[in-house]
Amino acid sequence: MEGKKASQSFTIMNELVLPNDTNVFGNLMGGRLMYWMDIAAGMAAVKHCNAPSMTASVDNLSFKNPIKLGNIVHIEAKVSRAFTTSMEIHLKVWGEDAQQQYTYESNEAYFTFVALDPNRKPRPVPELIPETPEEKKVYEGALRRRQIRLILGGKMKPDDAEELKALFSKQ
Amino acid sequence: MEGKKASQSFTIMNELVLPNDTNVFGNLMGGRLMYWMDIAAGMAAVKHCNAPSMTASVDNLSFKNPIKLGNIVHIEAKVSRAFTTSMEIHLKVWGEDAQQQYTYESNEAYFTFVALDPNRKPRPVPELIPETPEEKKVYEGALRRRQIRLILGGKMKPDDAEELKALFSKQ
Amino acid sequence: MEGKKASQSFTIMNELVLPNDTNVFGNLMGGRLMYWMDIAAGMAAVKHCNAPSMTASVDNLSFKNPIKLGNIVHIEAKVSRAFTTSMEIHLKVWGEDAQQQYTYESNEAYFTFVALDPNRKPRPVPELIPETPEEKKVYEGALRRRQIRLILGGKMKPDDAEELKALFSKQ
Amino acid sequence: MEGKKASQSFTIMNELVLPNDTNVFGNLMGGRLMYWMDIAAGMAAVKHCNAPSMTASVDNLSFKNPIKLGNIVHIEAKVSRAFTTSMEIHLKVWGEDAQQQYTYESNEAYFTFVALDPNRKPRPVPELIPETPEEKKVYEGALRRRQIRLILGGKMKPDDAEELKALFSKQ
Amino acid sequence: MEGKKASQSFTIMNELVLPNDTNVFGNLMGGRLMYWMDIAAGMAAVKHCNAPSMTASVDNLSFKNPIKLGNIVHIEAKVSRAFTTSMEIHLKVWGEDAQQQYTYESNEAYFTFVALDPNRKPRPVPELIPETPEEKKVYEGALRRRQIRLILGGKMKPDDAEELKALFSKQ
Amino acid sequence: MEGKKASQSFTIMNELVLPNDTNVFGNLMGGRLMYWMDIAAGMAAVKHCNAPSMTASVDNLSFKNPIKLGNIVHIEAKVSRAFTTSMEIHLKVWGEDAQQQYTYESNEAYFTFVALDPNRKPRPVPELIPETPEEKKVYEGALRRRQIRLILGGKMKPDDAEELKALFSKQ
Repeated sequence: MEGKKASQSFTIMNELVLPNDTNVFGNLMGGRLMYWMDIAAGMAAVKHCNAPSMTASVDNLSFKNPIKLGNIVHIEAKVSRAFTTSMEIHLKVWGEDAQQQYTYESNEAYFTFVALDPNRKPRPVPELIPETPEEKKVYEGALRRRQIRLILGGKMKPDDAEELKALFSKQ
Repeated sequence: MEGKKASQSFTIMNELVLPNDTNVFGNLMGGRLMYWMDIAAGMAAVKHCNAPSMTASVDNLSFKNPIKLGNIVHIEAKVSRAFTTSMEIHLKVWGEDAQQQYTYESNEAYFTFVALDPNRKPRPVPELIPETPEEKKVYEGALRRRQIRLILGGKMKPDDAEELKALFSKQ
Repeated sequence: MEGKKASQSFTIMNELVLPNDTNVFGNLMGGRLMYWMDIAAGMAAVKHCNAPSMTASVDNLSFKNPIKLGNIVHIEAKVSRAFTTSMEIHLKVWGEDAQQQYTYESNEAYFTFVALDPNRKPRPVPELIPETPEEKKVYEGALRRRQIRLILGGKMKPDDAEELKALFSKQ
Repeated sequence: MEGKKASQSFTIMNELVLPNDTNVFGNLMGGRLMYWMDIAAGMAAVKHCNAPSMTASVDNLSFKNPIKLGNIVHIEAKVSRAFTTSMEIHLKVWGEDAQQQYTYESNEAYFTFVALDPNRKPRPVPELIPETPEEKKVYEGALRRRQIRLILGGKMKPDDAEELKALFSKQ
Repeated sequence: MEGKKASQSFTIMNELVLPNDTNVFGNLMGGRLMYWMDIAAGMAAVKHCNAPSMTASVDNLSFKNPIKLGNIVHIEAKVSRAFTTSMEIHLKVWGEDAQQQYTYESNEAYFTFVALDPNRKPRPVPELIPETPEEKKVYEGALRRRQIRLILGGKMKPDDAEELKALFSKQ
Repeated sequence: MEGKKASQSFTIMNELVLPNDTNVFGNLMGGRLMYWMDIAAGMAAVKHCNAPSMTASVDNLSFKNPIKLGNIVHIEAKVSRAFTTSMEIHLKVWGEDAQQQYTYESNEAYFTFVALDPNRKPRPVPELIPETPEEKKVYEGALRRRQIRLILGGKMKPDDAEELKALFSKQ
């Protein structure tokens, strides 16, 4: 299976914040935003592996600025690294007030999707080839994020997480 | 401000998985589940602080078993610890196939909400009083999870995370 | 087929009233509430009979207090009595203004569901075993409600409704 | 305030049954149908009283034939009688399989709406003038249905329901 | 295949404008209205040909008056002419402010649907028989609209559009 | 008011076709697609004029290939020409089957939006500056499309449509 470039999975989504997407302050609810992010991440995953894919995990994400009613949600998703049967997708989310011509950061996130064969078993995915400096940087960080995921998911012991140990125990 | 018991914010949500909530395999999409979890967490947060609240962050979460079309999503949310102006909410999610009388784990998660005053500025929230052994356990773990959140959000240096350093650098 | 306890079908649903659920006064529309009640009743029915079930009828229901935008709808559903192939489900609905810590009654209702076999024909359901005093009381009233249903549905003559005749013609 | 004819509030609604409206058998869920019926009844109510109106109660209703995915739901609503500040709306619902040119009865129902003034207090509504034989028949039955509503809602004693007593105690 | 009268496909739809259907001015969004018009046109098409049908094209349509939140959208659809395997549907849309007893024009439109056989290939449809003067007038205009459609769709050269040439080149 | 480049309003939207968006053949309904196109066009319009905008008209559009359940809808919108208070937006829509790596044309369309001031009256918009050959080509065609719109909307006589007369009456 040949590798695929990060740019081949690049997906842009723009959504308008409608009344039913908002809380009592007229701000986009976090859950509605995660719903859209999951759709965007899923489209990027399928573009990379050309197979049905399913959300496996979502990394710690924090919301920086509320996105307002009537504003635009701008989501960019791109596969950042592929493992045997899974893909890490890097997402960046902005809010845009097109009337004020003002764009503001909402969050940055990593979703992990797993590719499935027709029997719903994990199936191999192509390697990810990063090209730009930013793609290479998030590609490098993917191992460390994966260790955090495995430790937080209880599947790896902190002692075995070489990348993280270095981070926390350095003199 | 008097403290409040964990049980006072306890919220149960049951949802039926409908066709539009599913992917091509007839399984609940991760984003739709996070939408419901955010609503449940938000209801628990408001019950604790009696003020409008907004999603601030979501901790790493991983989906263990797909929930199927026509099955029931069972979500339980409870505030696990309060900080000055924010609340950590502990969620547990199961799928239930009521015809097969079969219940299966989906995921366990921590959402953080911040309480807001009428000017949309953070406002103090009551302390959380854990009572059961499980409530006490998740209460204890909250500081460690908070350090992870701050480090992953770039607001704390690994060196300053005493709880985590102990975890990673122990002999 | 062994009987099942009322508590085995007990289902709690909590929903947040969003803008699109409301009328011009910012109050939850009756139809949207009945939609949620039907889902809750359906989940209770399937938990009791472990088979697909379909709404057969809804008893007279009246809405006591409007539930407001941003408030929580709290629904509790429990099978109150089983007949040969059908189940009566008892629902209680409250509104909750979590900011004001104020809970108010919305309505109480009885839905009837019928269990279906794979050919979509009615199939037998387990008997319902009431345990608490309240469960026993609604169990007792079920025959009377059933006679009302049959008379109002044109399937029974008032003269044959022994329970109701006693009610209306007593000296 | 001048009376208004029944025909002035006549409202027709046609809806297509989409995937998300159906249960596991591909039949329209009862709750979704009641949602549409409530909207139709509300439109008829506002046409009669020219004021915002709110669902007060729904009479016993039973679903006769399931309506299938892709079929048309045909709803007709018309005010059947007006009381001081409330209106009874008569609804008739059919399913239509336009491919098979087959129309089938779903249910017949009575909703009650109350008109509200700007302070959300009940306000007087015009009298209803029935014209056709059918309009006159449902107009006549409205008092009996109202007594049932009041008794079932616990607001009238069976002994005071003259119309019903006659029905149940006749020799 | 016998012809069918225009009146046999006549379909009325009434929808209530809810918060999520509106833009920042509280007016119905054009896209939401076209969604409803497409459903109404599709129901009329299926009533005419008794076969599954699919939107093929939408003629130029312009929105005259905005329809407001809480107002009623009234749509009437009727097949205006049938071609070999396609049907032109004529739609008329009004807004209605039932409180003010004020009805206003929104737009008039022509949708074209094509009938499909089980292999998803176009299949013949019955001829359309116009009866009223208005039905006959829109029937007559259908050829001209069809030429415009074909030219605008790049499937006919202006020179071959006899009806239109007459319109534009008359002395 | 300074002119703005076409590229400044460029908006990309990617949507996943979910079950409730499809007809009985599992193909995206035309009305649902027009709903998304209207949102995309509206975002492009607001980016151009930095003011609230409303759909004024939609030009003749024809659907070339059905978009399937689970496929991606890819919409690109860009202002193609500005008139005094209105903007013509050019949309291109594709379907994408990411598993098959197959992209297919759905339609090409022109929507017209009008900019509004706080009193909901039309307000001037910046001129549109086309840069690429394609932008210049659609810019040139805008006058002809506008004449068609005005004639079809009954606001211009065919005789006054110089651009169109040339098209239809040339020897």
